[in-house]
Amino acid sequence: MIMQTLNQTHAHSTNDQPIGIVEIVGQLRDLRTKSLIQRQRINTPPKLPSKAELATIIEGFAAALFPNRLGLPDIEAEGIDAYVAFTLDKSLRELKRQLRREITFNLQTVDTNSDDITQTVQQITRQFAAVLPTIRSLLDSDIEAAFEGDPAAQTPDEVIVCYPGITAMIHHRLAHVLYKNGATLTARIVSEIAHGLTGIDIHPGASIGRGFFIDHGTGVVIGETAIIGNNVRIYQAVTLGAKRFAKNSDGSLVKGNLRHPIVEDNVVIYAGATILGRITIGKDATIGGNVWVTQDVPANALVTQ
Amino acid sequence: MIMQTLNQTHAHSTNDQPIGIVEIVGQLRDLRTKSLIQRQRINTPPKLPSKAELATIIEGFAAALFPNRLGLPDIEAEGIDAYVAFTLDKSLRELKRQLRREITFNLQTVDTNSDDITQTVQQITRQFAAVLPTIRSLLDSDIEAAFEGDPAAQTPDEVIVCYPGITAMIHHRLAHVLYKNGATLTARIVSEIAHGLTGIDIHPGASIGRGFFIDHGTGVVIGETAIIGNNVRIYQAVTLGAKRFAKNSDGSLVKGNLRHPIVEDNVVIYAGATILGRITIGKDATIGGNVWVTQDVPANALVTQ
Amino acid sequence: MIMQTLNQTHAHSTNDQPIGIVEIVGQLRDLRTKSLIQRQRINTPPKLPSKAELATIIEGFAAALFPNRLGLPDIEAEGIDAYVAFTLDKSLRELKRQLRREITFNLQTVDTNSDDITQTVQQITRQFAAVLPTIRSLLDSDIEAAFEGDPAAQTPDEVIVCYPGITAMIHHRLAHVLYKNGATLTARIVSEIAHGLTGIDIHPGASIGRGFFIDHGTGVVIGETAIIGNNVRIYQAVTLGAKRFAKNSDGSLVKGNLRHPIVEDNVVIYAGATILGRITIGKDATIGGNVWVTQDVPANALVTQ
Amino acid sequence: MIMQTLNQTHAHSTNDQPIGIVEIVGQLRDLRTKSLIQRQRINTPPKLPSKAELATIIEGFAAALFPNRLGLPDIEAEGIDAYVAFTLDKSLRELKRQLRREITFNLQTVDTNSDDITQTVQQITRQFAAVLPTIRSLLDSDIEAAFEGDPAAQTPDEVIVCYPGITAMIHHRLAHVLYKNGATLTARIVSEIAHGLTGIDIHPGASIGRGFFIDHGTGVVIGETAIIGNNVRIYQAVTLGAKRFAKNSDGSLVKGNLRHPIVEDNVVIYAGATILGRITIGKDATIGGNVWVTQDVPANALVTQ
Amino acid sequence: MIMQTLNQTHAHSTNDQPIGIVEIVGQLRDLRTKSLIQRQRINTPPKLPSKAELATIIEGFAAALFPNRLGLPDIEAEGIDAYVAFTLDKSLRELKRQLRREITFNLQTVDTNSDDITQTVQQITRQFAAVLPTIRSLLDSDIEAAFEGDPAAQTPDEVIVCYPGITAMIHHRLAHVLYKNGATLTARIVSEIAHGLTGIDIHPGASIGRGFFIDHGTGVVIGETAIIGNNVRIYQAVTLGAKRFAKNSDGSLVKGNLRHPIVEDNVVIYAGATILGRITIGKDATIGGNVWVTQDVPANALVTQ
Amino acid sequence: MIMQTLNQTHAHSTNDQPIGIVEIVGQLRDLRTKSLIQRQRINTPPKLPSKAELATIIEGFAAALFPNRLGLPDIEAEGIDAYVAFTLDKSLRELKRQLRREITFNLQTVDTNSDDITQTVQQITRQFAAVLPTIRSLLDSDIEAAFEGDPAAQTPDEVIVCYPGITAMIHHRLAHVLYKNGATLTARIVSEIAHGLTGIDIHPGASIGRGFFIDHGTGVVIGETAIIGNNVRIYQAVTLGAKRFAKNSDGSLVKGNLRHPIVEDNVVIYAGATILGRITIGKDATIGGNVWVTQDVPANALVTQ
Repeated sequence: MIMQTLNQTHAHSTNDQPIGIVEIVGQLRDLRTKSLIQRQRINTPPKLPSKAELATIIEGFAAALFPNRLGLPDIEAEGIDAYVAFTLDKSLRELKRQLRREITFNLQTVDTNSDDITQTVQQITRQFAAVLPTIRSLLDSDIEAAFEGDPAAQTPDEVIVCYPGITAMIHHRLAHVLYKNGATLTARIVSEIAHGLTGIDIHPGASIGRGFFIDHGTGVVIGETAIIGNNVRIYQAVTLGAKRFAKNSDGSLVKGNLRHPIVEDNVVIYAGATILGRITIGKDATIGGNVWVTQDVPANALVTQ
Repeated sequence: MIMQTLNQTHAHSTNDQPIGIVEIVGQLRDLRTKSLIQRQRINTPPKLPSKAELATIIEGFAAALFPNRLGLPDIEAEGIDAYVAFTLDKSLRELKRQLRREITFNLQTVDTNSDDITQTVQQITRQFAAVLPTIRSLLDSDIEAAFEGDPAAQTPDEVIVCYPGITAMIHHRLAHVLYKNGATLTARIVSEIAHGLTGIDIHPGASIGRGFFIDHGTGVVIGETAIIGNNVRIYQAVTLGAKRFAKNSDGSLVKGNLRHPIVEDNVVIYAGATILGRITIGKDATIGGNVWVTQDVPANALVTQ
Repeated sequence: MIMQTLNQTHAHSTNDQPIGIVEIVGQLRDLRTKSLIQRQRINTPPKLPSKAELATIIEGFAAALFPNRLGLPDIEAEGIDAYVAFTLDKSLRELKRQLRREITFNLQTVDTNSDDITQTVQQITRQFAAVLPTIRSLLDSDIEAAFEGDPAAQTPDEVIVCYPGITAMIHHRLAHVLYKNGATLTARIVSEIAHGLTGIDIHPGASIGRGFFIDHGTGVVIGETAIIGNNVRIYQAVTLGAKRFAKNSDGSLVKGNLRHPIVEDNVVIYAGATILGRITIGKDATIGGNVWVTQDVPANALVTQ
Repeated sequence: MIMQTLNQTHAHSTNDQPIGIVEIVGQLRDLRTKSLIQRQRINTPPKLPSKAELATIIEGFAAALFPNRLGLPDIEAEGIDAYVAFTLDKSLRELKRQLRREITFNLQTVDTNSDDITQTVQQITRQFAAVLPTIRSLLDSDIEAAFEGDPAAQTPDEVIVCYPGITAMIHHRLAHVLYKNGATLTARIVSEIAHGLTGIDIHPGASIGRGFFIDHGTGVVIGETAIIGNNVRIYQAVTLGAKRFAKNSDGSLVKGNLRHPIVEDNVVIYAGATILGRITIGKDATIGGNVWVTQDVPANALVTQ
Repeated sequence: MIMQTLNQTHAHSTNDQPIGIVEIVGQLRDLRTKSLIQRQRINTPPKLPSKAELATIIEGFAAALFPNRLGLPDIEAEGIDAYVAFTLDKSLRELKRQLRREITFNLQTVDTNSDDITQTVQQITRQFAAVLPTIRSLLDSDIEAAFEGDPAAQTPDEVIVCYPGITAMIHHRLAHVLYKNGATLTARIVSEIAHGLTGIDIHPGASIGRGFFIDHGTGVVIGETAIIGNNVRIYQAVTLGAKRFAKNSDGSLVKGNLRHPIVEDNVVIYAGATILGRITIGKDATIGGNVWVTQDVPANALVTQ
Repeated sequence: MIMQTLNQTHAHSTNDQPIGIVEIVGQLRDLRTKSLIQRQRINTPPKLPSKAELATIIEGFAAALFPNRLGLPDIEAEGIDAYVAFTLDKSLRELKRQLRREITFNLQTVDTNSDDITQTVQQITRQFAAVLPTIRSLLDSDIEAAFEGDPAAQTPDEVIVCYPGITAMIHHRLAHVLYKNGATLTARIVSEIAHGLTGIDIHPGASIGRGFFIDHGTGVVIGETAIIGNNVRIYQAVTLGAKRFAKNSDGSLVKGNLRHPIVEDNVVIYAGATILGRITIGKDATIGGNVWVTQDVPANALVTQ
């Protein structure tokens, strides 16, 4: 009825034929309904975690981890712990809200305030918070690796502020903890935030050791079940991907099976190399640029085109 | 005169020699004038569509298409149609302002309020609005394709919110309609917004069928005259480009000729493959990773390094 | 003591076990302290230039260089010089603040107001300002090159507003001047801003001639000591990198030695080509897509896979 | 413990003696605890409705009531109903959140999601929404009265946009409905928003008829139990107040008894007049400027100094 | 139709009865239509100048008039004229947009781009701009008067930054020029902005000489046709108002006749005094606090209660 | 020269005669220079404390004093002390910047970094911080007084959130401490912020005891040297002012002498009363509405019109 009126009102102005918003709104509603029925979800779909809010939350954790470099620009010694405590408290509270959405969505429940959800949310948050010092320590090793591995790096501070690889790893190390504690969707959104910022696409399921250095980074892809040892160095456009996807008897993809490479300690992989499937790149091996690898590589090997 | 005063005033403070802004401003003015003369446009250059405003406009259309997932986080059933109607109306009104700039710019006219411009703008807008439900339907097929094509995807909702390929396709499908209706500059700006967000560079002229899935996506380039069938799947760093550029007799490039590949239904192209020129990749063919293709590929073929 | 109270207060609410922020804050403080000691910097670390503020500053210079296209959307003829003068003055003043941070950081001094620092900052700023018209002129040649080199480009205005290669070059040409005048960290941050926006990673140390055109651009990497002549054209995912890193007798990397390619006038390098080491690509040579080059290429040569 | 560290850290910088934030924070905590105990509320105090959020909500309702004058500046005919529907829906949803806080606060309950609260909130909101057209109609009569009563008013549109009396009445008429439906704290906050904007202080409990005109308005005070008829006109600094406050046997004030004037239809009260106590100003009476009235005034009377 | 769907959709959730937005939107539309018909304006009402935008515009002029005190906090000598020029240019351009709205509204025309409107807008703007130096000079005299007239004022700078009387006079002197050039609605909105900020209500029609000082100011009312000489001083809650309103033969008010006081040079009026009607307060007279004056007062007289 | 160009450029567009910004900018510069010379300050005037920044700073202190009511809306028990500590630290740091401006301004020095200024700023800040718990305690007594003194008040929480008298007293009690420690300009700006928000004008020099309640408040004026005892209650439009201003032999006003009333404990002053000069209103006295008092009033007296 609103729209009928709109169209009538519109008819008064001659050189400005109506756009017909009412019909378009109706058609879009039909498509939404159809889409919900198809997924067997008649009712209002539950909310998902918000990408925009998670971006702010991750900035908060980054600021708490590196208050002098990624926090307030004019923080002083006397206020620094209060700043870290406040920022942690605020970011954890906001994280809880996002986690509650994911848990509720997973349960497809209407009762968004059940004690079970509250307990699960609180538990994931507590485990996440407890591991933050470990994450800081791992990131310190990543920064050290970048400083030592790039002749252009002049100070570790430059590395924290400038290197997209560090931005990607801050996001990944936080997302990975969420992923391991069951908040896989929240984790994935955090990873995509980093992907958008840096062009580095690390699935939150990937397991990565100490002292990981990604140089330049644009186009790097690291898959869900990849395992990376300590002190590994990779360059732009490196892919650690799946070779082929296993299928179920009904033709649909098997989800979650181990399909990405294992990269052992001290491996270096140069730009554009593509390593596919559940293979192992042995300790101290070097993979040259643009090389295509689909089979195990022994320790200390040098693979080039 | 202003600047003389500035320089004099400045002379008072001894340890702070003037920067000489007046000279720099003058030199920049001379360069601007020279540049305008070179392009035979003496007068004030007309405004162009604004990238920042188009980014907001496209967010508006995305919200109208997917109000539960990309619109207001706390929208409820009773308000959803009013939200869609309001968002559409607002975004279409703002789109008209941008289109008016492009049309005026193309005509190189000063009379920004002529009836002709108004009519053209209104016509493009109406055609754009009318096709929005079709775009939603196409995007549903893209989401379905991503969900079915990626073992890591757990729900279609995750795909909408997380996958850069979907972000790119929302922009592309909207931009393509603008392009086909003559708003080529506006369309191009929309494409570059997606390029900046995702690292996926699809020219708005490219024609793409249903169920298109881009995985990871960073580094993908799809050219202006490319034609892509239904249910095609491509991975990161795939290029569908031109082989060489035809030149006019005066040595300048021929603009707009057919120079990019045709990719038929159900084709899969793995990461880093480069396909160049007006060639055809036949139905159900598979192109392996990092492969370089400059000649037709028959249906059902498998091309690897 | 604060935290003890917090924990006690918390104990009242039974279903909401405390997160233990006090312990986490303490652990993070210990890690910060350890990290500072390791770098032999006990005291409060000096501030670094801010990425967010530099992003705004660079937008200001871009607006002053191209006021009609990248400045205020509704600027008119009468106000344009005042706008340019004001924007320059404001951006230069803000740049000075960032430069002061870098100089102070480099000197590791506490006295942030010494006359020496003031003089150095003023000198870099003055030299930077003086070269802005030259930068505008170089960027005009880059825009011309893009317009002439891409059949899809319809006007030079489209190039300024849409092409990520131009965005990258605006940043690079400004950053390079800062780099040459000693503000290497500020310069690097500016480069990373462009990297994040475009996926194009040009080290501010790279020297680039007139009429440089990067098409599509995602994944391009150009190293610190690269030298590029006039009218060079490169495509997406091209790397101008280092072959190997020289090491000092203690095993640490030699920093700053010449290790990236020299690319002479009129060279064209197609997508995905990788050129490594201090080699020379001679005048008018063409490097094909995906090619791997580690040795000199003579003038006029055509190198393909 | 945090603060001890702070103080120790601080001791390093000699010319900058610590402020002792830890002690101050502790003293403030003690005062908060004391204050809570005094009011017999040991636990965390429940949230109150937010003044800042209510200010935005009331702006939303004003925009829905007068979309052309107080809504979007560039709204067009085709979109106006969608705008009103969306704005109403959004503002009502946000109002519900504020009402939930008040109801929860009044019940001093921890269970903020009980069905009772939900039902009460929904009921108040529904009654509030249903009466909005009546409020628009009353405000139209207020605007008409201002236009007819002020020789300086040139159009009714000027009255809507400029007159603080109208701003005050938009707030009052909305607040009064909330007050009557039991949301007295929310109502009071809305009144104080108007007080801050206009200097006009109308308690939301006051009952006011059609065609009420407040000229200039600064300093007007209208008490909780005042009753004002139709077509009344008052000027700046008029007080309709209480004469004295009744006390309970324990010396505390009686809350809520009838203590403010009744002003009948067509009364005019000039600037600075003070009318105190539960007296009646009869129909068509005129009260002169600066007059002090504490007894009934008969119909048609003229009271001057 | 939208709303029917809404109501049906809503019926699914049992504990959340619909609010019935569709009916309310319909009722509000009917009231809007009725109100437009009543004012004989069937079509879409033209836009009015925006209070929010005028507030920003006036801040711009204040900054241009007092760049060191009300402009950018960190402006330096070299940039000050560019700042003033840019701010003037920007504020004048935005003022033109508001003036165009008023002129179009007054003409009740649909053709918002006629040459007549453009010319009128340009003329008012030019006259307004030309008188800005005079306004600065008058405001300097007001500041001087405040500094000399208040024992609590310690510097003229404090007066500019702190005194609401100066805020009110900056607005008034700008609004008065607009009023005299025919932009009476824009002028009135500017006055109400000041009224809201300071509680001082000066109609833009009032004519005020040099060196005018309003101390404290809350509650001051100065009417449309008041004329105030040089070096007049008034205190809070002073009214210079109308005694009674002349009526036309049809009972409606005569608009615009001379009905407010003339206050000659050097008069002082203490707090709460009320001066009504077209009377004259002679040179050097003093009016005591709370006094009620409705007849001429001779020069040098002292009037007290 | 810039402006000459502007004018020439402008001449091209015929229907749009130039505004002549260059002349206006020049005239404004001349007036600024003249004004500076008149005050014997040739050089760039030093910065003053910023009203906008002080408004934010005071909001910070209010949030630290009442974190549950005026701080973050969703603060929880575990985070409250960290929030208070962080907010205090941040607000004190920002306050220091404002104080530095005032001290530098007072000294009329160019050396804004002298040790003397630093020490003075640090000392005022420390004394201010130390007295914050006392201020909280005084404000608690004010809130209690309002709750007990107003029959319309339903909870102390309502008083904190709604009553303008409390807003005014939060500002005053903070401003008064700054005033007593020598930051008189900063203090005055804080007072004017409250004046703008509430219409209550209390000079920061006024000394006010415990349990002070201002009801309604608009139009209240309390002068610099006023002294108010404990448990005093005043209503709207009450003035505690100066009777006349003493003059020096040169005709200029004596600044700072004792000229405002002393109001002893438990006095009540009703709306509109005006009390002028250094007189004493004795303990437990009551002053009726609109009364004019210029002589001592004995204890327990009741003064009415």
